[in-house]
Amino acid sequence: MCEKSSVSPSSVPVVAVVLAAGFGTRFDPDNPKQLVSVGGKEIVVWSIEAFEKNPRVTDIIVVVNAQVGDEVERLIDANGFGKVRAVIPGGAERSDSTQNALQMLADAGIPGEAKVLIHDAVRPFVEQHSINGCIDALDEFEAATVAVASTDTVLLTEDLGDRKVIRTVPDRPNTFRAQTPQAFRFATIRKAYAQADSDPDFHPTDDTRVVVDYLPDTPVAIVAGTETNLKITTLADIPVAENIAETISGPRTREEAKVRMHAVFADAFKQMRR
Amino acid sequence: MCEKSSVSPSSVPVVAVVLAAGFGTRFDPDNPKQLVSVGGKEIVVWSIEAFEKNPRVTDIIVVVNAQVGDEVERLIDANGFGKVRAVIPGGAERSDSTQNALQMLADAGIPGEAKVLIHDAVRPFVEQHSINGCIDALDEFEAATVAVASTDTVLLTEDLGDRKVIRTVPDRPNTFRAQTPQAFRFATIRKAYAQADSDPDFHPTDDTRVVVDYLPDTPVAIVAGTETNLKITTLADIPVAENIAETISGPRTREEAKVRMHAVFADAFKQMRR
Repeated sequence: MCEKSSVSPSSVPVVAVVLAAGFGTRFDPDNPKQLVSVGGKEIVVWSIEAFEKNPRVTDIIVVVNAQVGDEVERLIDANGFGKVRAVIPGGAERSDSTQNALQMLADAGIPGEAKVLIHDAVRPFVEQHSINGCIDALDEFEAATVAVASTDTVLLTEDLGDRKVIRTVPDRPNTFRAQTPQAFRFATIRKAYAQADSDPDFHPTDDTRVVVDYLPDTPVAIVAGTETNLKITTLADIPVAENIAETISGPRTREEAKVRMHAVFADAFKQMRR
Repeated sequence: MCEKSSVSPSSVPVVAVVLAAGFGTRFDPDNPKQLVSVGGKEIVVWSIEAFEKNPRVTDIIVVVNAQVGDEVERLIDANGFGKVRAVIPGGAERSDSTQNALQMLADAGIPGEAKVLIHDAVRPFVEQHSINGCIDALDEFEAATVAVASTDTVLLTEDLGDRKVIRTVPDRPNTFRAQTPQAFRFATIRKAYAQADSDPDFHPTDDTRVVVDYLPDTPVAIVAGTETNLKITTLADIPVAENIAETISGPRTREEAKVRMHAVFADAFKQMRR
């Protein structure tokens, strides 16, 4: 899959893995969030397009579930996403989906020094500077993750009887909220997952954490994200996403914008009243 | 100030300190955020009212700056907030404002076992169950804070050269975002600030942190907050606040709601385009 992909002969493959296999239980189960349109474009299309249009990304793998697979394949064709090498099935948990993609890349024979960027499809507005930041960080680090500084004071708690009590309050400049992509040299993320697999108690919810916990000597760099790189989790996120899409796409006519805003916020209000 | 305030003879005073002395540098400097109307009511009025209408709160102190002081006094009179015992000037930093209020309470002779709830005026939508949760928690603990569970994975970082790298990834169920009120037995918060004062390097941004850092053997309980208890920091928060105000106040007529939404979102869009 990679022979035709290198930007220059000396560069390594840069593979984006777009995870679109979630079932979105906090969203509407009959209306998969990956396929919802914001700003006139399906969420999964926004996400794939972000990597498709980055000239440094050489290959894209999309991971799907049975509910959305056919439609995602159709959308990839319809949008002419030429870097998508495979659409593969995910697993029960997020980490199973990541591991399916990593196994597929291993079977395809990609080198250990390849750069792999793992991205949640439901973060449609990832900025090009964050993608580039990941690719650059991997020149210096084996692992990196996009994150934003926390504007709230974070409290770390522990259980005291049936109550949570504060254990520590970390300094705010050292508290970040993880986003995606999360980026790794291929050999590093494979090794981290191999170690995690031998631990029956480990159920990773995050790829970065697998490296932090199982390769503790491997520093993971922070790459600047943006507040607009939000994760669409519930229906209440859709009006926010519409606002961001509008800002990115530029102003429509006054009349179009008005009509759209009405529809969007009417829906949002309906949700809030439920 | 407290002789007439106890709900029952055996109960201790429950004093709310509403901090409205911030200058809101990330907001509009000429338009103090405490005085902005959302849902037809000034933000500081929402905040004071939350404590005024709680039957267990006996006294309220409001801390102001010179820019907003006269208008806050006028609003307190206009709204007939009978529990407000004093409107006092704040200081340069948030902790100076807290300490001014604590000194005023000490001068008034309130007992060490009094319950003091310190609240940011720019969190207008604090829920009654959170206020009650603080008051109840202080029966069992010397300190408590309202907080919400973090929905994002939190990363704790350290500096490596000019980069931030991840130090640890705490378990998500033990990560919370601090809100207010933050609640203390009066003697406890006084003692914590007395200790902090003797440390020239300490510039607390948060009252809870003063207890966590200077009275490390004093557990601080977590009291359930809500996502709607947001802190209004930038102009972009205003449309979100309007939505919450609308939900709390109940539906207006269809026409009123339409007109208002237009105005709010038109403003929000203007801000986003700047």
